[in-house]
Amino acid sequence: MIIVTRPDATEEQIDHIAARIRSWGLKAEVSRGEMRVVIGVIGPEDKIREKPLGAFPGVESVTPVLKPYKLVAYEFRGRHSHVQIGNVVVGAREFVVMAGPCSVESESQITTIAKEVSKAGARVLRGGAFKPRTSPYSFQGLGKLGLQFLAEARRATGMPVITEVMDTKDLDLVCEYADCLQVGARNMQNFSLLREVGRTKLPVMLKRGMAATIKDLLMSAEYILNEGNFNVLLCERGIRTFETMTRNTLDLNAVPVLKAETHLPVVVDPTHGIGLREFIPSMALAAVAAGADSIMVEVHNAPEQAKSDGEQALLPNDFEDLVGRVRSVAAAIGREM
Amino acid sequence: MIIVTRPDATEEQIDHIAARIRSWGLKAEVSRGEMRVVIGVIGPEDKIREKPLGAFPGVESVTPVLKPYKLVAYEFRGRHSHVQIGNVVVGAREFVVMAGPCSVESESQITTIAKEVSKAGARVLRGGAFKPRTSPYSFQGLGKLGLQFLAEARRATGMPVITEVMDTKDLDLVCEYADCLQVGARNMQNFSLLREVGRTKLPVMLKRGMAATIKDLLMSAEYILNEGNFNVLLCERGIRTFETMTRNTLDLNAVPVLKAETHLPVVVDPTHGIGLREFIPSMALAAVAAGADSIMVEVHNAPEQAKSDGEQALLPNDFEDLVGRVRSVAAAIGREM
Amino acid sequence: MIIVTRPDATEEQIDHIAARIRSWGLKAEVSRGEMRVVIGVIGPEDKIREKPLGAFPGVESVTPVLKPYKLVAYEFRGRHSHVQIGNVVVGAREFVVMAGPCSVESESQITTIAKEVSKAGARVLRGGAFKPRTSPYSFQGLGKLGLQFLAEARRATGMPVITEVMDTKDLDLVCEYADCLQVGARNMQNFSLLREVGRTKLPVMLKRGMAATIKDLLMSAEYILNEGNFNVLLCERGIRTFETMTRNTLDLNAVPVLKAETHLPVVVDPTHGIGLREFIPSMALAAVAAGADSIMVEVHNAPEQAKSDGEQALLPNDFEDLVGRVRSVAAAIGREM
Amino acid sequence: MIIVTRPDATEEQIDHIAARIRSWGLKAEVSRGEMRVVIGVIGPEDKIREKPLGAFPGVESVTPVLKPYKLVAYEFRGRHSHVQIGNVVVGAREFVVMAGPCSVESESQITTIAKEVSKAGARVLRGGAFKPRTSPYSFQGLGKLGLQFLAEARRATGMPVITEVMDTKDLDLVCEYADCLQVGARNMQNFSLLREVGRTKLPVMLKRGMAATIKDLLMSAEYILNEGNFNVLLCERGIRTFETMTRNTLDLNAVPVLKAETHLPVVVDPTHGIGLREFIPSMALAAVAAGADSIMVEVHNAPEQAKSDGEQALLPNDFEDLVGRVRSVAAAIGREM
Repeated sequence: MIIVTRPDATEEQIDHIAARIRSWGLKAEVSRGEMRVVIGVIGPEDKIREKPLGAFPGVESVTPVLKPYKLVAYEFRGRHSHVQIGNVVVGAREFVVMAGPCSVESESQITTIAKEVSKAGARVLRGGAFKPRTSPYSFQGLGKLGLQFLAEARRATGMPVITEVMDTKDLDLVCEYADCLQVGARNMQNFSLLREVGRTKLPVMLKRGMAATIKDLLMSAEYILNEGNFNVLLCERGIRTFETMTRNTLDLNAVPVLKAETHLPVVVDPTHGIGLREFIPSMALAAVAAGADSIMVEVHNAPEQAKSDGEQALLPNDFEDLVGRVRSVAAAIGREM
Repeated sequence: MIIVTRPDATEEQIDHIAARIRSWGLKAEVSRGEMRVVIGVIGPEDKIREKPLGAFPGVESVTPVLKPYKLVAYEFRGRHSHVQIGNVVVGAREFVVMAGPCSVESESQITTIAKEVSKAGARVLRGGAFKPRTSPYSFQGLGKLGLQFLAEARRATGMPVITEVMDTKDLDLVCEYADCLQVGARNMQNFSLLREVGRTKLPVMLKRGMAATIKDLLMSAEYILNEGNFNVLLCERGIRTFETMTRNTLDLNAVPVLKAETHLPVVVDPTHGIGLREFIPSMALAAVAAGADSIMVEVHNAPEQAKSDGEQALLPNDFEDLVGRVRSVAAAIGREM
Repeated sequence: MIIVTRPDATEEQIDHIAARIRSWGLKAEVSRGEMRVVIGVIGPEDKIREKPLGAFPGVESVTPVLKPYKLVAYEFRGRHSHVQIGNVVVGAREFVVMAGPCSVESESQITTIAKEVSKAGARVLRGGAFKPRTSPYSFQGLGKLGLQFLAEARRATGMPVITEVMDTKDLDLVCEYADCLQVGARNMQNFSLLREVGRTKLPVMLKRGMAATIKDLLMSAEYILNEGNFNVLLCERGIRTFETMTRNTLDLNAVPVLKAETHLPVVVDPTHGIGLREFIPSMALAAVAAGADSIMVEVHNAPEQAKSDGEQALLPNDFEDLVGRVRSVAAAIGREM
Repeated sequence: MIIVTRPDATEEQIDHIAARIRSWGLKAEVSRGEMRVVIGVIGPEDKIREKPLGAFPGVESVTPVLKPYKLVAYEFRGRHSHVQIGNVVVGAREFVVMAGPCSVESESQITTIAKEVSKAGARVLRGGAFKPRTSPYSFQGLGKLGLQFLAEARRATGMPVITEVMDTKDLDLVCEYADCLQVGARNMQNFSLLREVGRTKLPVMLKRGMAATIKDLLMSAEYILNEGNFNVLLCERGIRTFETMTRNTLDLNAVPVLKAETHLPVVVDPTHGIGLREFIPSMALAAVAAGADSIMVEVHNAPEQAKSDGEQALLPNDFEDLVGRVRSVAAAIGREM
């Protein structure tokens, strides 16, 4: 922690700050420049991260030296982690495609789509049973029935399933059916939910919030690991910017940054990221080239009838074509599928 | 709903779209311009808001004519609503100041601060017992004990209390103690929580999420009203922008827009909004002048010892000074305190 | 300057960095914490601000201690500056209202509006002769003729005029007519233009760019002062955010921050800031309360016929009403008009 | 153009709007829904794009049907354009790599780097002689001397050169030396400069501003084409968002959107886009996969001595390695190098 004092800070104020730091069991090194006094704090930074140093008279700025995340940090493991969803490993040399509809709408819908995407090369099936919708008047998902249909689709195809849990009270139910839990962008800082999914044994895919910095995302993941669950995948799915031609701004910059900062695997969701069907394949390929471990893509066999997000679902044929191109790009950067 | 077709849309595609609209019981008016065909949809827009019209071949854009919110819309009431917190009315001619510490830390802390802010002119006491914190290693609040201390401070001062609920499983507990529930910025789109607070009888202050548009905020409020609870206050508390000199960007533009769009009262939180102690009074006064009904300000008697956000807490003396200035500006725009 | 090294930085790398710092005539203090080595650089920070320290092997981060602006810094003067536009002083106790149409359209248009706004209480007349327009097909301003009409309106009312200069090649011409130059948001980082206006004797109002941080704005002003022209006003006029209900997001947070960081006067342009006529008065009053020295408001006597931005122009009557309210709020915070 | 009226719009107001539209030679189709009256305007939209329809009493919103750009629109050509820089064609099947230092610093520096990048596979040499710098105290470029050194490097390698022009008054000089003009992000809406470069015969690379929407970028390009110069390349180089771990947020979403909206070639600058040396290769590969026609990368042989942006320059060896990977990804998506 480095404390820069104000130009008008008094000796008394500086002494007061240094004394407090020492009272917390840390070392304070006072360094006098021409214009400013700088106080370096030496010792375990955690001890004082929560101290309101900025509230002390005479302080201009407080800059941490160490990162606030520990368990998710790349250094914690020193290698990239593999996370297993059913029989599929994410984070290893194989590039993994996850696909499925936005919402589970019926047993035949999810089973039909599951078979199509599996045939095309998808390894994990997605489908929402609990749907976070901006409007209370929109389709909110089939709930338990949707989970049962998902299980049916798994039986029919052998694909493990990933599905969203929106609330702690639904967690037990979702855990009965899911192979991987999804925490959505809107719940990325629902800390109660993070703690609870951290107490399950299931892998968790945590989506980046629309206004969440990469650091925020890592801190939210830290909540899950801190409860003992290290099977976490991080998912970039688009942030909010001023651009209006796309639904969100898929931030692929997060991919190489995350691969350097954390050992956790990185998934990219180009569907929500750009939100326009015709541009999803380009962003999917870019995600592969940027170094993601996996992509998650929405596919629907009858988008005109979809109960949510039909506008951004790929048709099975387009998806099949995309998987072929993903395979080529993955091979070009030394990954396989 | 207005559908603009692509320049290369075929007659067949246009007929298909019009036919589907009619099949939903609405009227489709096809209007042929020189460059584009436009299809106007006449009838209750709700019926087709959820239809994936953008997924139909030949569609370039779909623009709604009506607003997606109903119960929160100003037109629904035709006048501004008053929301009662204990014995205090927000949204009437009186400008209401809410104040208190970020977190409840001890009985003496909260009671001392409550007495100070009450004496200075605050009408509602704030204080967090359940704290949403970016880091799992930060102080997470005293929970039930914090609620009991809050109740003690209420007894000592007569001020009603507002406190945050973070999860549906804590709701019953919080309802036992609170006069007003707060749903925090990070939970603004926790739709399960919104529905549950909508089923209580308590007033709810809903804070705008950091990446939430004004429309998103109104839609989240709609969830609460839709469950039967009309006692909702909306709170602007800063959005995420590229600016780094301030903690957030308090968006006062939201104040007049909300006052025109909805009948619900508008609160401004300058503390989190700008996040720098010395600038909070300026933003508080600006909030009054912009037309807010209330401000919520963090005050601490010993910021250096605060367990959260000490850097941005006003001292009781500074708060008292601020209330005097708020009173002057309120009077200047025809409100009283 | 504080350099934090990577956890895996070698002694050789640390020595190399320290040696280079010393070779530039500065002192390097190496401080070894438990997890990181921190190198403090002592001496005039300017000398190394431009050195690519981040390019040195072993460096994790480089944090400046001092601010990069000097002439604009509040400390440079130790008091707030007054800037004189014709016979009007901005930055003193008097709150100054500037008003006029977006574009000068005809002699009668600008003279009529000038008389109206002058009567209502405006002290400076605005009007664009060179107009920066997003589209090449939009009205681009009357150029020299517009400047002549402005001069005519000045003669008719006695108000000094402010008008935009868009390019170095028009500067001499604009200087012949203007009492104050305006550098628009889109030219805030047109450094050639900044240098040239810095060589004139006229006051300059510099508008904040739509993606400019407060620091960027101050650095651009520094260009002007660095050429010898200290008569600079800074204008907040709205930044780009994700919000779409307003044209821009007027960032009033910038007002108190600028008043603390710089001695230069601060103007707010609520018209472009929120961009919706009915909400401009609220934002204007908020700007006064936030501590601005002046506001600039667009007024048009026939908005339906305006050649630019008619949607956001106040009618003369509404403007007169606004000035009365501005006067009340200004009085409430101890300023006069 | 589609005009939606307010719920309380009177018949008189609606008639007034329709009458005005007809007075401009267009057709007005009034369509009465249950809640709103909608007025469709039929005829050349350009005629009324500039009319302040939003200023008319009774209007709630005005939505254009057609796009405001014409010459840059994909439909204008119906195929993608090729732009020739010296002997290099951008926009055809060949993927083009442009490279060079941020600034031209000396003849030996630019010639050395030019030879290195040429050998590694770059086809166009970049290097700044006029440098837009946030601070007036930073290195501002060598000006004419820098242009002469660039010409020398061209002679030594045969590579055409691209260099920035910052001001209309420098344009003739830059045109003497450059094969392609660059208009920087900060000048993207310097409309005087856009017009002037539109009158030259040289190709122009227009960089997207930090707060510019894709539509803004296209409108700025329209200025250049409208003056007769169709040899324009568009360059995505990162936008401003709330993320602070990267210098900017490279918006690769813009790539497929631009390829669909315009016939102009698309270049991506990953160096400024993410601004962190170690992550540039990932973003460069992602740009290729997203469908860009070219990338521009900064390379320096001695980043520690660079006079600008040394932190984000690749070393020649790293660049050579990158080119090999770019070639593989380009091949994987059916392009050659």
